[in-house]
Amino acid sequence: MLNQCPHSTVCLPATELPRVVVIGAGFAGIHFIKKLRGQPVQVVLLDKNNFHQFQPLLYQVAIAGLEPDSIVSPIRKLFQDYENLVYRMAEVERIEPETHRIFTNIGWVSYDYLVIATGSTTNFYGLHQVEENSAGLKDIRDALDIRSWVLQNLEAAAITCDQQGKDALTNFVIVGGGPAGVELAGALAEFKRYLLHKDYPEIATDWMKIYLVEAVDRLLPMMSSGASAHALKVLKKLSVEVQLNTAVKGYDGTTVTLGNGEDIQAKMLVWTAGVKGDAPKGMPEGAFVKGNRLKVDNYNRVVGYANIFAIGDVAAMVSEETPKGHPMLAQVAIQQGNLLAENLQQHVRTGVFEKTFSYRDKGSMATIGKRNAVAEIGKSRWKGWFAWLLWSTVHLFSIAGFRNKLMVGINWMLRYLKYEKANRLIIRKFKPISNKSFQSF
Amino acid sequence: MLNQCPHSTVCLPATELPRVVVIGAGFAGIHFIKKLRGQPVQVVLLDKNNFHQFQPLLYQVAIAGLEPDSIVSPIRKLFQDYENLVYRMAEVERIEPETHRIFTNIGWVSYDYLVIATGSTTNFYGLHQVEENSAGLKDIRDALDIRSWVLQNLEAAAITCDQQGKDALTNFVIVGGGPAGVELAGALAEFKRYLLHKDYPEIATDWMKIYLVEAVDRLLPMMSSGASAHALKVLKKLSVEVQLNTAVKGYDGTTVTLGNGEDIQAKMLVWTAGVKGDAPKGMPEGAFVKGNRLKVDNYNRVVGYANIFAIGDVAAMVSEETPKGHPMLAQVAIQQGNLLAENLQQHVRTGVFEKTFSYRDKGSMATIGKRNAVAEIGKSRWKGWFAWLLWSTVHLFSIAGFRNKLMVGINWMLRYLKYEKANRLIIRKFKPISNKSFQSF
Repeated sequence: MLNQCPHSTVCLPATELPRVVVIGAGFAGIHFIKKLRGQPVQVVLLDKNNFHQFQPLLYQVAIAGLEPDSIVSPIRKLFQDYENLVYRMAEVERIEPETHRIFTNIGWVSYDYLVIATGSTTNFYGLHQVEENSAGLKDIRDALDIRSWVLQNLEAAAITCDQQGKDALTNFVIVGGGPAGVELAGALAEFKRYLLHKDYPEIATDWMKIYLVEAVDRLLPMMSSGASAHALKVLKKLSVEVQLNTAVKGYDGTTVTLGNGEDIQAKMLVWTAGVKGDAPKGMPEGAFVKGNRLKVDNYNRVVGYANIFAIGDVAAMVSEETPKGHPMLAQVAIQQGNLLAENLQQHVRTGVFEKTFSYRDKGSMATIGKRNAVAEIGKSRWKGWFAWLLWSTVHLFSIAGFRNKLMVGINWMLRYLKYEKANRLIIRKFKPISNKSFQSF
Repeated sequence: MLNQCPHSTVCLPATELPRVVVIGAGFAGIHFIKKLRGQPVQVVLLDKNNFHQFQPLLYQVAIAGLEPDSIVSPIRKLFQDYENLVYRMAEVERIEPETHRIFTNIGWVSYDYLVIATGSTTNFYGLHQVEENSAGLKDIRDALDIRSWVLQNLEAAAITCDQQGKDALTNFVIVGGGPAGVELAGALAEFKRYLLHKDYPEIATDWMKIYLVEAVDRLLPMMSSGASAHALKVLKKLSVEVQLNTAVKGYDGTTVTLGNGEDIQAKMLVWTAGVKGDAPKGMPEGAFVKGNRLKVDNYNRVVGYANIFAIGDVAAMVSEETPKGHPMLAQVAIQQGNLLAENLQQHVRTGVFEKTFSYRDKGSMATIGKRNAVAEIGKSRWKGWFAWLLWSTVHLFSIAGFRNKLMVGINWMLRYLKYEKANRLIIRKFKPISNKSFQSF
């Protein structure tokens, strides 16, 4: 499949087949592409990263529980032997729907069908000061930044003599009581309990404080109140300071200002309190709903366009049952990707779209510290050790590739048998935190 | 072991014991410290990284054969439960022998005994243009930079239409025919043979060219001529273009200028052609020999000082048998670290140094591509599959820690059974190459 240049400014193999351009190799994008294997279309995948990330386990990388390499899969490896697929590492700059073209940092590509699967990004709700001084937890670079940040603060605490400075370095604030926040807080609390005294004899265990701040009145608000209560109980037992009904107003890098007028001195803040659609530029304002998501119909067509689709987090299928669109979950993305691939095949053959999307809720789960989780599937609800086993099994099976499954499995086994984390490495030089410096890594 | 501050400007536990400060957690430093466990001295270890690196496997990280996390060990984990050890993450700025102090980016530390174990760094022999535009292969950041660089060049080649530009992107030049250069060239040739066509259908296998340039008349000059000939034969079979008796004069990022007047167009150059001592500032010029190494006596004392020692690559024990000091090898570093620890214990007790150093050569080995190596131990010489097995066993046993051994072992097994590399990830953003941008990661 050697290139025939120039076919468009981005070198692509010449073809008579309709070209489907997919932007984004997240859950939605890769499941869409898998279903199109061998079909009579040319699929062009654009992503700025050369890898797919298994987002549900980012928090374990952040807390040195897993190597980053175990939860990402190179795109070219995922799609080896897909003869109708072309991958291009490219950052999309804007879409030009009028001319059916996408402009990227490596040139433009024309499309017959366009699938926007760009996912979501951290939503700071306009709190610029917080954004400047905190980390999100949405991609592997965030996770590596957090890993280095935690460890560097502990190294600094080990040599800080004044108590106030030391306190700020050993206080860790996580904002947002959804799964990401709960899981990160639990993992950090485990680290504190089982590892801190071994690695840092200079730091007494109870100096380290983990705050989990949530604006509404319970943790895991998308789950049952029983799950919320269980998560709260377990985190409290792990000495996490959970503050419900509390908003974060500001953060200057040292002082976290809370809505209730109090503040917390902390040299680290991770923001997991919101996400928004991460749509590329060029789509008209009218195509968006609140949260920067593209409004789509039941076939995932972006309203107003016959050949532009959005799937996954970036899509909001607004209807009576889902007035705000579906929840921004991996399962929605996967199911939308699969269905759109089916519909598109049909459309290429017959010119019609056949099946409308309906979400099958496969349940939700979250781990809370070691060997503890909550899981809800249909009407079944579990908490504790069995939920944790379920969580582990489901996630292990969901990771792409035999090698990654094996590596993650072994890591978890070692951790289960013996509290032994993966490597606690500061490989990146951590500069005074600001999202700008993050992006430069 | 909580700090009693302020004891010196770098917070350290108060003690009556003599303080031994070690700079550098390489092979020499960690073996020295292990021997001092539980002895009546306070050991203070300073290193700018919070991890020890297993340098012999860096080339496998560079070529995506191993995860970086598998070949580095966090210092605090290595020395958990060493009650007489204090680790401080610090970059040494200079030594002040007159006042027995070390100045670092986090303050100063005073010492009773100072052990300089700072190892070596890439020696570009004054070729600034080469230094600006190429990568070394001396630490984990180098290895990760090379990994990203190789992959980014291939991504760029996949979309480059003019043949000349594509050639430069698929040409890889490695300078230096020692073990690092031979192993990297072999691994890159494996990648080309087994993986390139699967991952990059856009790039024909024979477009990719690997050049290994060596100034003297044979590869692996520290081994027998039989080993050199074997390495040359195997690399040629793997289509590596080996150029002996050829010096590199310059490299501007695109054109490699050779001593014989020819040039090679290549967008990547890795320089493994030389190392030099990486001594901290503050030692007088007279203490150094050629190659920036500290001249030491038979007890590893730096000449002119009673309480400053140098071990490993940074030390040159100049004698009749070793007019240039010992070779810069892990084995020398380990043996010097061990002996100095013994001598120092004796000195603390009795005030005398007892045993002079004599190097036991444990042989040398190098892998060349897949399942092939050369190994020479004493008068025994092996090449081919058995040497490779020996190499693998020795290296697997030498890696610190059960977890890393397991991870490396599994990776190798997977690779042995099936040509499947670890993850081919571009996690760092690769800027137009220059050593300055490297250091900012």
